[in-house]
Amino acid sequence: MFRGSNLPRLADYNQAVVLDLIRRDPGQSRADLQRTSGLASQTVSNITRRLIDAELVSEGERSDPARGRPSIPLVVNGGGAFAVGVHMDPARLTVLLLDVAGEVRQLRQLRTPQAAGPSEMTALLAVTTGRLIREAGVDRDRVLGLGIAVPGPLDVRTGVVLDPPQLPKWRDVRLRADLHDATGMPVLLDKDVTAAAVAELRTSAFADFLFVYLGSGVGASVVTQGQVLRGASNNIGEIGDILVDAAAEDLGWSGRRGGLAAACVPEALVIQAAEARLLPLPNLTDYLAIDDACTALCELAAAGEVAASAILCRAARRVAVGIGVLVNFLDVPRVVLGGPTWNRLSATFLPVLEEAVRSELVVSREALRVVGSSVGEHTAAQGAAELVLDHFLAPRASVLVMG
Amino acid sequence: MFRGSNLPRLADYNQAVVLDLIRRDPGQSRADLQRTSGLASQTVSNITRRLIDAELVSEGERSDPARGRPSIPLVVNGGGAFAVGVHMDPARLTVLLLDVAGEVRQLRQLRTPQAAGPSEMTALLAVTTGRLIREAGVDRDRVLGLGIAVPGPLDVRTGVVLDPPQLPKWRDVRLRADLHDATGMPVLLDKDVTAAAVAELRTSAFADFLFVYLGSGVGASVVTQGQVLRGASNNIGEIGDILVDAAAEDLGWSGRRGGLAAACVPEALVIQAAEARLLPLPNLTDYLAIDDACTALCELAAAGEVAASAILCRAARRVAVGIGVLVNFLDVPRVVLGGPTWNRLSATFLPVLEEAVRSELVVSREALRVVGSSVGEHTAAQGAAELVLDHFLAPRASVLVMG
Repeated sequence: MFRGSNLPRLADYNQAVVLDLIRRDPGQSRADLQRTSGLASQTVSNITRRLIDAELVSEGERSDPARGRPSIPLVVNGGGAFAVGVHMDPARLTVLLLDVAGEVRQLRQLRTPQAAGPSEMTALLAVTTGRLIREAGVDRDRVLGLGIAVPGPLDVRTGVVLDPPQLPKWRDVRLRADLHDATGMPVLLDKDVTAAAVAELRTSAFADFLFVYLGSGVGASVVTQGQVLRGASNNIGEIGDILVDAAAEDLGWSGRRGGLAAACVPEALVIQAAEARLLPLPNLTDYLAIDDACTALCELAAAGEVAASAILCRAARRVAVGIGVLVNFLDVPRVVLGGPTWNRLSATFLPVLEEAVRSELVVSREALRVVGSSVGEHTAAQGAAELVLDHFLAPRASVLVMG
Repeated sequence: MFRGSNLPRLADYNQAVVLDLIRRDPGQSRADLQRTSGLASQTVSNITRRLIDAELVSEGERSDPARGRPSIPLVVNGGGAFAVGVHMDPARLTVLLLDVAGEVRQLRQLRTPQAAGPSEMTALLAVTTGRLIREAGVDRDRVLGLGIAVPGPLDVRTGVVLDPPQLPKWRDVRLRADLHDATGMPVLLDKDVTAAAVAELRTSAFADFLFVYLGSGVGASVVTQGQVLRGASNNIGEIGDILVDAAAEDLGWSGRRGGLAAACVPEALVIQAAEARLLPLPNLTDYLAIDDACTALCELAAAGEVAASAILCRAARRVAVGIGVLVNFLDVPRVVLGGPTWNRLSATFLPVLEEAVRSELVVSREALRVVGSSVGEHTAAQGAAELVLDHFLAPRASVLVMG
């Protein structure tokens, strides 16, 4: 519903607009900002003064052009604000400290303790976060909050983890409140695939893409016209049941036969590897053991083991069918793959995926690109931290309407 | 990219906001509008005066409440503006005249002439449009334009029909320009599934849904938070290749074996009916013959012919698998089915579809509803007309930013 626009909150909004412009495109002068924001010169001047006083923005070195007035580039002051980003995958935990300039200041990756229930996990995350901030030598008052990305389904509004299939000890866990109690920080909870898309959007130059997340599970998210789609209950992205191979073998596994999860998640891959006698079958209730076996399978393929390569190539072709379904439906020009498993699979997947996806398309798309994430393996943790920075610092058009 | 907001165009924007509020919720008084728009009393007063002068809004009967001031309800004046909506399905043509209050004033449905190429079709549409406006007794100056919904793929920006698989004579047709030349009206071209979603959004009370379009082809569109998603090239919705039955029979047909199109489009259904000796196989290059045979199949099922019912029930279960893929991925609370074939299929589909979709879901969704379109069979034509009204009358937030 559109509402009319009056003026009372415009100043806050404009300040957020200017900070956001500097965050997205550092080095602009006040004159540049006047052009890019459309605001009056005096307004830009006042706002940049306030941002500099708040230590969120600083002035770079004055340029002295041959002709015209010298201009002072404005940059985000990385030390002005921070957020903690956490990603909880069933096999891997990532905790990082992101500064407002988008730099990861400190990063810690842990193997997810398999025996840990929600309260042990909360305690571990609080301790790790405290240590991370101390090691970074950062004033805790400048840490705006903590964002945590977890597998769905979630109730994002109440901050509750409902019943993720891969986290059997997690049922209706008030993770947001618990982490807030344990850390004293504002906490934001979101789905892993959504956080990953946020990080990709912030780091890459593209505003329309499908993000395919490969971790202990498989999921997807969508960015369209620079907006991250979340789904009506913030649980977008369950793609594991999409049929990708009508003739797929029965893995004797809980996932749908012939489905996308059965095609590519580490659990399904290591079952296939064990079947081919490449590896002993790991304990399938232990995501660490599965993850290690998946690493071993990828190493075998990299070492030239034909049977291992065949398993991964088949996985890539099946993943391409699933991506084809989503590209046909969504009409996206770009597919980005990432997540904790991606780095291990990319050597096999990247050379074949784009052509394989293209062969699935109903409408020919010469411009379609299938690429790896520009953020790296810790994309979901970085996105969780970005969500916190955005929550506190980004302009939201809704601020403009009253209510 | 966010830009700062200044004031020059605010008046136009606010006028569009007020008109839009009255269109969406007729009967509001000036005091109500003040509340719902957030605008000052004098501003609302001035704007409603201008809208009344332009004959876009009129005053209803003054209410005299027992206490408090009497108030005058404001309603959209249906006679103030109109748009023509056209839907071109390979089997059925719909042309209608919609007024700004959302009433269909005149409606004509034709069988699509199978031999007609683009130029004959343009001429036919221009003649039909002229006749429709005359029959409605409407001042042509008040007809804002013509919207036409067609099967994709399209280049919406240039108004060109690219190469719809079901319209073999249509290749790179400049339909928007041609129709503009033939009618003298502003013309807006859009995809059938997008137009259908627009009409559903405007007519129903729901702002988040998947729209599944069943016509000569099958497609889908998505509305999220009241916004119709279009896809990066405005070609959202190709879902015909989604695998829905790994064990599906080979129809000897061009569509993907086991795919959603093979499950439910009239062409595939009549092949199945002919295979079961329920009907003679029609000429498969004639969409009218296919459409008639599909009607006959549905009538057989309605008359209690078990083999006909079995074909349609199987189609419903397969469609449910496809819808399940999209609901799992998108996290939508509601699925709406419509389009030219829907009315004939709904008797078989509706009783089974919701439960069948539910059984496909990864995350349980008790609130999920699967319903038929509230607009009826001419949903795409109505949506095409709504797009024209919106183009000329609705507030667009982008007007607020300069450029």
